[in-house]
Amino acid sequence: MTSDYQAAADWWATSISDIQPGVIRLRGYAIEDLIGGASFSQVIWLMVRGELPSAAEAELLELTLVAAVDHGPQAPSIAAARMAASCGLALNNAMATGVNLLGDVHGGAGQQCLEVLRELRTAVRAGESPEAAARALVTAYKDRKAFVPGFGHRFHPRDPRRDPLISALTAAVDQGVVEGDYLPLALALEGVLAEGPKPIPMNVDGATAAIYAELGFPPELARGLFVLSRSVGLLAHAYEQQQEPTRIKGPLPKSITPTYRGVPPRPVSS
Amino acid sequence: MTSDYQAAADWWATSISDIQPGVIRLRGYAIEDLIGGASFSQVIWLMVRGELPSAAEAELLELTLVAAVDHGPQAPSIAAARMAASCGLALNNAMATGVNLLGDVHGGAGQQCLEVLRELRTAVRAGESPEAAARALVTAYKDRKAFVPGFGHRFHPRDPRRDPLISALTAAVDQGVVEGDYLPLALALEGVLAEGPKPIPMNVDGATAAIYAELGFPPELARGLFVLSRSVGLLAHAYEQQQEPTRIKGPLPKSITPTYRGVPPRPVSS
Amino acid sequence: MTSDYQAAADWWATSISDIQPGVIRLRGYAIEDLIGGASFSQVIWLMVRGELPSAAEAELLELTLVAAVDHGPQAPSIAAARMAASCGLALNNAMATGVNLLGDVHGGAGQQCLEVLRELRTAVRAGESPEAAARALVTAYKDRKAFVPGFGHRFHPRDPRRDPLISALTAAVDQGVVEGDYLPLALALEGVLAEGPKPIPMNVDGATAAIYAELGFPPELARGLFVLSRSVGLLAHAYEQQQEPTRIKGPLPKSITPTYRGVPPRPVSS
Amino acid sequence: MTSDYQAAADWWATSISDIQPGVIRLRGYAIEDLIGGASFSQVIWLMVRGELPSAAEAELLELTLVAAVDHGPQAPSIAAARMAASCGLALNNAMATGVNLLGDVHGGAGQQCLEVLRELRTAVRAGESPEAAARALVTAYKDRKAFVPGFGHRFHPRDPRRDPLISALTAAVDQGVVEGDYLPLALALEGVLAEGPKPIPMNVDGATAAIYAELGFPPELARGLFVLSRSVGLLAHAYEQQQEPTRIKGPLPKSITPTYRGVPPRPVSS
Repeated sequence: MTSDYQAAADWWATSISDIQPGVIRLRGYAIEDLIGGASFSQVIWLMVRGELPSAAEAELLELTLVAAVDHGPQAPSIAAARMAASCGLALNNAMATGVNLLGDVHGGAGQQCLEVLRELRTAVRAGESPEAAARALVTAYKDRKAFVPGFGHRFHPRDPRRDPLISALTAAVDQGVVEGDYLPLALALEGVLAEGPKPIPMNVDGATAAIYAELGFPPELARGLFVLSRSVGLLAHAYEQQQEPTRIKGPLPKSITPTYRGVPPRPVSS
Repeated sequence: MTSDYQAAADWWATSISDIQPGVIRLRGYAIEDLIGGASFSQVIWLMVRGELPSAAEAELLELTLVAAVDHGPQAPSIAAARMAASCGLALNNAMATGVNLLGDVHGGAGQQCLEVLRELRTAVRAGESPEAAARALVTAYKDRKAFVPGFGHRFHPRDPRRDPLISALTAAVDQGVVEGDYLPLALALEGVLAEGPKPIPMNVDGATAAIYAELGFPPELARGLFVLSRSVGLLAHAYEQQQEPTRIKGPLPKSITPTYRGVPPRPVSS
Repeated sequence: MTSDYQAAADWWATSISDIQPGVIRLRGYAIEDLIGGASFSQVIWLMVRGELPSAAEAELLELTLVAAVDHGPQAPSIAAARMAASCGLALNNAMATGVNLLGDVHGGAGQQCLEVLRELRTAVRAGESPEAAARALVTAYKDRKAFVPGFGHRFHPRDPRRDPLISALTAAVDQGVVEGDYLPLALALEGVLAEGPKPIPMNVDGATAAIYAELGFPPELARGLFVLSRSVGLLAHAYEQQQEPTRIKGPLPKSITPTYRGVPPRPVSS
Repeated sequence: MTSDYQAAADWWATSISDIQPGVIRLRGYAIEDLIGGASFSQVIWLMVRGELPSAAEAELLELTLVAAVDHGPQAPSIAAARMAASCGLALNNAMATGVNLLGDVHGGAGQQCLEVLRELRTAVRAGESPEAAARALVTAYKDRKAFVPGFGHRFHPRDPRRDPLISALTAAVDQGVVEGDYLPLALALEGVLAEGPKPIPMNVDGATAAIYAELGFPPELARGLFVLSRSVGLLAHAYEQQQEPTRIKGPLPKSITPTYRGVPPRPVSS
């Protein structure tokens, strides 16, 4: 084996998958043992974390994957995937178009909320009470006129995904599946945010972030797991669009013309 | 409600999701009932097919989702996602980059194999034997020097994902979970393809196509489900790459320079 | 140099660019000679064709690049890029989102029209008159209820980009810049398509296809050049969107809810 | 016109393009006047800035567009586009794949350098000398072990694009095309960065940033213009790849297998 071989092989080194002729091992497990030996949720966890989770941990993760699959064509990611399908793109290209849109603003709230929960956890470990830490954080956000990520929803007065997720997490804490270090912090935040004229309850991003924090996921992966979940909605919507006759679907029906607000007509002077 | 409202609302009509303030219903099911009431695989099926599958059907689907999560950085989709991560892209953008590459050639074999199996099914329904139909099809492919999609692997003499998938499908046929209309066709094809000097066994795309055919999925969705599965590998690899210091990762280490095969140096004549 | 080095270097061999420390040569020309020595249009041509065009040829290409820069947010590509920008994506990611949508249906008409013109050219070379060849082709399209690509516009009764492009091409034929083999064919098609109750004049894709055919571009590049042109509009719109406060811009204002056409509410039976 | 119409139309309001049946106006100019009446560079400027530039300004912009078209398949964006093409993607999808990779790290240096130049400009306006401001900035970057964006190149000891761009900018300052507020700042930075054991000369991003600063472009657009330029290389490479027989092109030839660094084989315990 030459040093050139080694340099090229090492350039693409990975700890995830070992692929040899006739062999596919993921994190050390033979693929033929994983097929049937582990659930999809367990394999998702294995791939991003390196170890297989317990069945109870995987079930908790699975709830979050179910929760976020779709929020309809109002979501720009779904709309973009449908428009892509109407332009003749294959399903993978249409799905990629939608996934691309799940950026900081559209798909990053879970990640940001997880960072907030970790910040609170640090404060609590340093001796603060959850309530005091939550209050200080909310005040800081209000002072810079920012929303606390994971709370409130521009569409739902109360996000219907909050309760089943938080119930399941509460049960998991009770059963010792997770430690319960973060759930009280998320609830403390919600409590402080309920004190204003209009309560701002936890949304799906906040509830999943609480679960991910309890399960030990780093913040970045909150976004990644959300992408896996929403990809299901992207697939369903892109496929539904493909069955329809509309071609080159713009955002508005042809009967409505976008407003023009620019400079009036003018000649090109030579 | 004005006709303009109606036109705009109808422009984005969907049968998948009903989103109202406080309400998220997918295919008629309230999200709070689906969270905990259905597995992720069941919800994937529900979203793309419109109805919830039985647990046994969902388990069969789940095997295929596990089977295809990753094939390492040799796969251009994974490599592209890793390069994207090294360019500073967020996980969603890196995953989108990889998903985009799962096109006709890289991600379309399952879809094509499903079409082949349906073609054989039509022939069998018309009275041909599976073997005769398979033989005719293989001959037709050989005549135009094409590969039968779903069979053979450029890397694995025998794809290690074939056996566990076909075993599970065989068991499902035995247990009456599926009809068994397509499994014999896939095996007949494999039999004919084993007659040459070098057998060309079923690969992961062929085995999953057989399962999808039995489960009643249309061909396009074979690609979509593959995208969902491989997205897990894309996430794991993009995240692993993010933890590494390499920036602007090209395909080769800096010590190796791509060969230039173009015209020799020449001046721009004025 | 080892054979491993050679294999890796050759794997990425190219005839386009020769990059060595301190050296960047494109198609044999040193980059420092091209900067200031060739126009952007000339370099675009050089990169995709391999040779520098004459100034007159490059000017003709340049007209087509100007013509297609934008068609407003009705176009799904532009809308998707704006939605992407509103989700917090950087300009490159927003532009990529839009470019991805310029597929067969949205961005492929020029390519398809170029193929049609080449088909007519073959017929004419075989002895048919342009009119007869055009008439036969239109009949064939009508018979399968297809539109002739490059003619008619769902929005413009007469595409305002047709006349200046065709005028310039006519002048270029008169001046001997191009041969004039394809312009008569495009005009013959337009003539036949004007015979019905409603004329179907050439659109921007047809006019640019005529120019690209005269300039010797292969059909695939018609799409590629359209992408380069429309990327300008994508950039402008994504940047304009970034300046606005809207976040997570869906296709419709919040006051309008997409119509739901699916099954009514139902319970998850256990 | 109903309020619903107005709400929907306003949701997609733009100052860029006014599209009516038979009418396409960009920034107030009829498209038929722009075709032939303005160069591609002028129209690029018009679209992103709102006004047509002088011919001299557009020429300066054009040099930067020529300079950055390609840097070969070592660049991950180009490699990803080629891999995409080998997976059967159409040119637009392959180009989008590459554009997506031009993120903060790969395509953002020009933007970051423009921000640095603006920072220096503020310091100079406040009374500091260019040299002192440059020295303070370089010290601050060194202290946090960061590279000054726009200077140094991991591949070229001296970027061959620097000299022709800076020469042209110098001439433009001399001729009064631009004010010359930023060129001295870029040169001052280069001077300070030349004092170490190894000079760190301006690279293409630094030189184009100096030009964009002089021309009044906001930093974000430096990235956008780079995307427009590099899209040319993406098109050329994706098209070249399409002509080749390689399918599913991974980053390494099949003779080289990526190194596996993960846990050794292990059983799935039940």
